[in-house]
Order: sequence, then C-alpha cells, then structure tokens
Amino acid sequence: MTAGREAGPWLEASRQWAEDALAEFLGRVDLGPPALEEALRYALLGGGKRIRPALVRLVSDALGGDERATASAAVAVECIHTYSLVHDDLPCMDDDDLRRGRPTVHRVYDEATAVLVGDALQALAFEALAEAGDDGRGARMALALARGAGPAGMVGGQVLDLAGEGRDLDADAVRAIHTAKTAALLGASAELGALAAPRGAERAEEALAFGLALGMCFQAMDDVLDVTGDAATLGKTPGKDAGAKKGTLVAALGLEGAQAEANRRATEARDLATSLGLGGLGTGLVDLLLARNS
Amino acid sequence: MTAGREAGPWLEASRQWAEDALAEFLGRVDLGPPALEEALRYALLGGGKRIRPALVRLVSDALGGDERATASAAVAVECIHTYSLVHDDLPCMDDDDLRRGRPTVHRVYDEATAVLVGDALQALAFEALAEAGDDGRGARMALALARGAGPAGMVGGQVLDLAGEGRDLDADAVRAIHTAKTAALLGASAELGALAAPRGAERAEEALAFGLALGMCFQAMDDVLDVTGDAATLGKTPGKDAGAKKGTLVAALGLEGAQAEANRRATEARDLATSLGLGGLGTGLVDLLLARNS
Repeated sequence: MTAGREAGPWLEASRQWAEDALAEFLGRVDLGPPALEEALRYALLGGGKRIRPALVRLVSDALGGDERATASAAVAVECIHTYSLVHDDLPCMDDDDLRRGRPTVHRVYDEATAVLVGDALQALAFEALAEAGDDGRGARMALALARGAGPAGMVGGQVLDLAGEGRDLDADAVRAIHTAKTAALLGASAELGALAAPRGAERAEEALAFGLALGMCFQAMDDVLDVTGDAATLGKTPGKDAGAKKGTLVAALGLEGAQAEANRRATEARDLATSLGLGGLGTGLVDLLLARNS
Repeated sequence: MTAGREAGPWLEASRQWAEDALAEFLGRVDLGPPALEEALRYALLGGGKRIRPALVRLVSDALGGDERATASAAVAVECIHTYSLVHDDLPCMDDDDLRRGRPTVHRVYDEATAVLVGDALQALAFEALAEAGDDGRGARMALALARGAGPAGMVGGQVLDLAGEGRDLDADAVRAIHTAKTAALLGASAELGALAAPRGAERAEEALAFGLALGMCFQAMDDVLDVTGDAATLGKTPGKDAGAKKGTLVAALGLEGAQAEANRRATEARDLATSLGLGGLGTGLVDLLLARNS
C-alpha cells in the first residue's frame, strides 16, 4: 500500500511539472496576434489535473525517456485535451458556461474565438511534438497523437457521443464512445511516453494498451459515480449524465454490472502497469483514479 | 511565353494528381464513425483548384523529391486548407451557405459536425505528414505545417481578419492579414515541397519565401479583381469584400497602388522561382495566378 500512498504526491509533482512545461512552451513559441495569445493562455492555463501529461511522464520515466521529448509530448497531449474541451463547450455542442469553475472560452470571448483557440491549440500540439525528436521518433510520435486525436479517436468519439444523446445505448455502444472519446487520447499519451524513450518503440503497443485500459476504467467509474457519488467527490452535479440522457454503462448494465466492468478494467490496467515496469506508481495511479475519479 | 502556356495544362494535371492522392489517402486511413466519414468526404472531395498541393509538387519535382513524401505533404496541406474553409464558413465566423457552388458543411449536416469535420481534418493532415518520412524529415515537415497553420499563421490571420471587419485598415494591417491568413500556408506548401526532397532542407527557407510572395501576389490581385473583375472571372460577386467592409489593399492604397503592389510581389515570386530552379513552370504559375486569380 506504500505504492498507493506515493501516487498522490507524485501526481501533484507531475501536475506542477506539466504546468512548468506548458508555461515554458507558451513563453517560447509565437502565439500570434495579442487577442489570440490572451485567449490561448486563458484556455490552457486554467487549471486541470494534467492527467495526460502525468501518463506521458510515468511511462517515459520507467522506460528511460529523455526530458526534452517527454516534456514536448506532455505539452502536446495537454494542448489536444484543452482544445477538445474548448470545442465541446461550444453552444452547438454541449453548450457549457463553466469549465473548471471559470467561464468557458466562448463566454469570456466569443464563439469565433473559441473555435479558433481550439484550432490553434491543435496546431500547437503538433508544433510541440515536432520538437520532440528529429531522429525519426518525431514522425512516429506525430502519428500516435494524430490517430488518438483524430476521426478514429477523440473526434470520432465526440461524434458518437452527440449522436447517442437521448437514445438507449447498449453496452457496446457506450464502450465505443468511451474508447474513442476518452481512452484513445489517454492511450496515445502512454504511447508517446514510450516513444519518448530511445528504445521505447518496442513497448509502444503495450503502453497504448495500458492507457486505453486506464481510460476505460476511468470512464466506467465516471458512470458509476454519476449515480453513487456526491457533488464534492465528483466536482460536478451527480445524476447529470443520466439527466442529460447520455448513454452510460450503468443504464446498459446496471450499477453492479458497471462497477464490475470498472474493476475488470482496473485489473487489466494494473497488470499492464506491472508488465511495463511502471512499478508501484503505475498501479498506485490506477487505484487513485479508481478511488477519486473526476 | 511557352512556359506560360505550359502552366495551364500542368496545373490541371497537378489537380488530378492531388485528387488521386486524396482519394487514396481517404481509402486507406480510418475515418471513424460512418456519419463522420461521409461528412469528411463531402468536405474534402468537393472540388477546388488544389493550388497548395500543386505548389508542393512544383517545388518537390524541381528539387528531386520522392513521390511518397510529396503526395503525403500535398494531402496534408489540402486537409488544412479544407478544414479552414469549413470553420471559416460557420455561422459564428463568415456565415456562408455556399462553398464551391455547394451547400457548406454546416448547412448539409449541422454546426457541431462542421466543427468536428474541421478538427478531424487537421488531425488527418498531421497523420498524412507523419507518413512522409521517418528519417528525421517527418518532424521537420510537421513543424513547417504547424507553423503555417497555427496561431502565428493561418489561424492568427483569421483572428486578424475578423477583428478588422468594419474598420479602416492601413496597408500594413491589410498585409498582416494577407500574410497570416493565406500566404503562410502557401509558404508552408512550398517549404514542404522542398523538404520532400532528400537534400531539400537547405532550400526550405527560399521555398517558403517563394510561397509567401506568391500568396501575397494572389491576395493583392484578389483585392484588385474585387473592384475590376466580373463575376465570371472571379467565381464570386465583385465588390463583395468592399461591401462587407473588409480591409483591402485597394481601400488602403487605391487601385493603382494595389495593382503596383501585386506586380511587385509577382516579380519577387518570379525571381525566387528562377533561383529555386523551378523553370518556366514556376514563372508560368505566377503569371497564371496573376492573370486569372480566384
């Protein structure tokens, strides 16, 4: 249980490391016209747990990745994640006014700015990644990120999610949404962590599987906590997904079935963490996400 | 003048080559859920002159680029260009119902789909490019595209363009919009053409300058033709930009001043074409764009 206790402080240190890497990147690259630069900083430096950068760092550290490639990949996945939040919050999508307790980008600025901030963040993600390695790794890393973020990954997941609203979805349909919308980018984050290591390419597939399992566990627990959690644990109103008629694993499998699936995914993620040599931090991170979620 | 006569058929052959490369790419990669795949094909295969792929090919052929890297780069720049059109047409931006004579993506589908199609196309651009070369060129190419497309390039140009609407802009403000919104991606296209050649990196900066000059010439002529052209030449209603109170070089410099600037940019582009060894096709392409624009 020492491992589980270590994961909390490690995650906090990792969050600070990610903040530093993001600030360093934003200070270095050309962010365009001042109005765009301001909105980009607002979107990107608005808090958040920086789970995806942590995943990059966890795998990279275990496999001997170099600091420059690891930081570049961490910045890249967080830029992609942030752009997806900015676009998902748009009136034509989820129409959210608040994000991490602050007004969303389109509420502070306007819709056009929010679309363009998201577009710019995606370009910046690939700019960051291109700096990660010019020895052949750079292209392999760009491929991993593009696939995790693109139509067969995150963007496709949002399409499925919007199409599924108000419908009864079976468990496989819910899993397809979870896989594409959330797990694909978590998978790519772990994969990039492997690729940041000089000989990490041979472990990239296993790392991808670890990130995917972690993502599926995370989403299954999200559905469970939407029913059983309180607002303080969730950081949002319980019952929100059920109320919005979003397809959930609880609706498809019942509460016990969804909890059992979360447990199965957690076991899978722990096994992969062990075989990847992530040590106690890997399994501890799974336990941490399983326990507090959000 | 033989050169000028050759450029027309070459541009048409190049357009067909780009269509084939796009169709091959779309047939090969995972385009996600069927609804997204359909919308992606609608957006990407809707005609267009494929000027940016032509620019990639022109420079790559002159410098000895290989076919695979050249086609990948051509697909990438056209994906970026198409995503920018889909997002620019959104109600919160230019609010256009028609594009290339067909209903815009958000009119055929809905706004959420249009946002997501654009997002997916940008990811696909970098996926295409990642295939271009895993020998170190891939990362350098991703950097060129990300900078041309990102906040200091195309996206920043759209921010400036929207901010400038309804205002009197001086010539430098108009040039800043032209540079970022259009010329940056044309510059990146030419740069990618150079990088597609095994030893093209040393010519990349010159190629970028050629694409930028071509883009600035193109935009200056666009402003001139908005005043002097007829609908058949323009492919759009003359006076549209002046009517929309968009800042133009004609408004800032007068008709003669804008025409003189277009001519200066054309001379610059022709000189760079010659020094890059693009032959008659390079200067012919400048003449062609200068003459018929659109």
